[in-house]
Amino acid sequence: MIILAALLAAATPATVAGIEKDAPPTAWRAIPPENLMLVNTPKGNVVIELAPGFAPRHVAAIRALVASHRFDGGAIIRVQDNYVVQWAIKGSDGKTGTGPKLPPEYERPAEGHAFTPLPYPDPYGRAGFSEGWQAAMDGDKQWLVHCYGMVGVGRNLAPDNGDGSELYAVIGQAPRHLDRNIALVGRVIENIEAWSALPRGSEAMGFYKTDPEKVALTSVRLASDLPAASRPRFEVMDTGSASFRALIEARANRREEFFNRPAGGVDICNVKIPVRRQP
Amino acid sequence: MIILAALLAAATPATVAGIEKDAPPTAWRAIPPENLMLVNTPKGNVVIELAPGFAPRHVAAIRALVASHRFDGGAIIRVQDNYVVQWAIKGSDGKTGTGPKLPPEYERPAEGHAFTPLPYPDPYGRAGFSEGWQAAMDGDKQWLVHCYGMVGVGRNLAPDNGDGSELYAVIGQAPRHLDRNIALVGRVIENIEAWSALPRGSEAMGFYKTDPEKVALTSVRLASDLPAASRPRFEVMDTGSASFRALIEARANRREEFFNRPAGGVDICNVKIPVRRQP
Repeated sequence: MIILAALLAAATPATVAGIEKDAPPTAWRAIPPENLMLVNTPKGNVVIELAPGFAPRHVAAIRALVASHRFDGGAIIRVQDNYVVQWAIKGSDGKTGTGPKLPPEYERPAEGHAFTPLPYPDPYGRAGFSEGWQAAMDGDKQWLVHCYGMVGVGRNLAPDNGDGSELYAVIGQAPRHLDRNIALVGRVIENIEAWSALPRGSEAMGFYKTDPEKVALTSVRLASDLPAASRPRFEVMDTGSASFRALIEARANRREEFFNRPAGGVDICNVKIPVRRQP
Repeated sequence: MIILAALLAAATPATVAGIEKDAPPTAWRAIPPENLMLVNTPKGNVVIELAPGFAPRHVAAIRALVASHRFDGGAIIRVQDNYVVQWAIKGSDGKTGTGPKLPPEYERPAEGHAFTPLPYPDPYGRAGFSEGWQAAMDGDKQWLVHCYGMVGVGRNLAPDNGDGSELYAVIGQAPRHLDRNIALVGRVIENIEAWSALPRGSEAMGFYKTDPEKVALTSVRLASDLPAASRPRFEVMDTGSASFRALIEARANRREEFFNRPAGGVDICNVKIPVRRQP
């Protein structure tokens, strides 16, 4: 009977929701509390997962700004439709920072980092997944890609002048032309809708014109700064797991009753990486 | 001197903004007033271009609903983050309509319709542009694709039960898995930010829970219903023009000073088709 049930399960076409629900505990990894950045505003609180594995020096700079409470009293200063929400420490000029300049960190050596290729073509090169993130690679380099919710470090024209004091999150069609032109440092994993629904700014590039339009940052903390009992706990699906490989296939061939014609392919940003509050 | 200037111009790498600015009048086509749908709400007025060349019976049904003022007093009933804004005639159940059922119209014969291929791979098949629209084709069929701002006809599970009384606009990463599963009938060409910034609904799939959350449709009209002098007039770039082909290339290889590394490719939805108020 157990064998029959297993055969039946294997024969049942899988849906996205079903795969996520049935994934074993080993298909999930906990997010360390020092990688969880909690951004609180009067318009809603957002949780960001940082990506030190891709941009270690940028993430260290951001953690240092958080530790010294430099973001508290800052604001969301820009919302550009189909593009980005951008926020900054207090007193920022809205374009770049005044802290120590950081190296670009736009890519990392591929060696030593597992990569699950997306088995469909990508107009920008070779896309896939590495250590729980949407990524791409070429030769011996690997990098994060600009999907919805990804968080990057604003900079001016010089490639090295971001200092982590200006951050943005993608709220539209993936602006993949920014890949390897800006350092990506994380992604919004909870409540991005609090920010993506903010009024768009009326200045060029969606900057807010006046101070009252800006949304205050009440406090920005790492989960590791909180007492253990009050830390939010999240886990992300392991992108090297069998569950995740099944999920890629199910995203490319949607089997929910609504669909008459499965697409037979999917782009990297429509393969959403499951993240959940820890059960 | 004129020859020298032309040589210099040819040698100057083109930017997206430059190409659009320099496109000759012949690279633009006026949008007929019967294809302009003006949707007015207390939260902002939006202009939609209809696509009768792709979904003639759906567009005819929508024009009939507009002519009988069936949308007036209707509402925006659903806003789902990174997905769609949906609106409906008064009294709609929020899922489907009660009017005559329409045939799917998910694709059209390719014959007789020019197609400018996107010269980069697409994970969903063969993407390109036809008659001013982002499209795709396979064999002898051609269809519209679900880019940001595209407008489609809501339906329930049966493939033929949309009647045009429930419409949605894409406000996130292109949900290309919907291509050929729903009839696309147009696109928002002005002020989508008035709708994409609306609060997300708290019910399943982003439906608003209560009537006060909904955004009223004050009036919905075609430009052709207005006196000629008060009609808004728009034009769209001809996707078969030399200017548009240059624009595809400039989108794939951004040359603005900000970019250090051009992507060398672009997805169909990041090749925005220029639309402007008629000069």
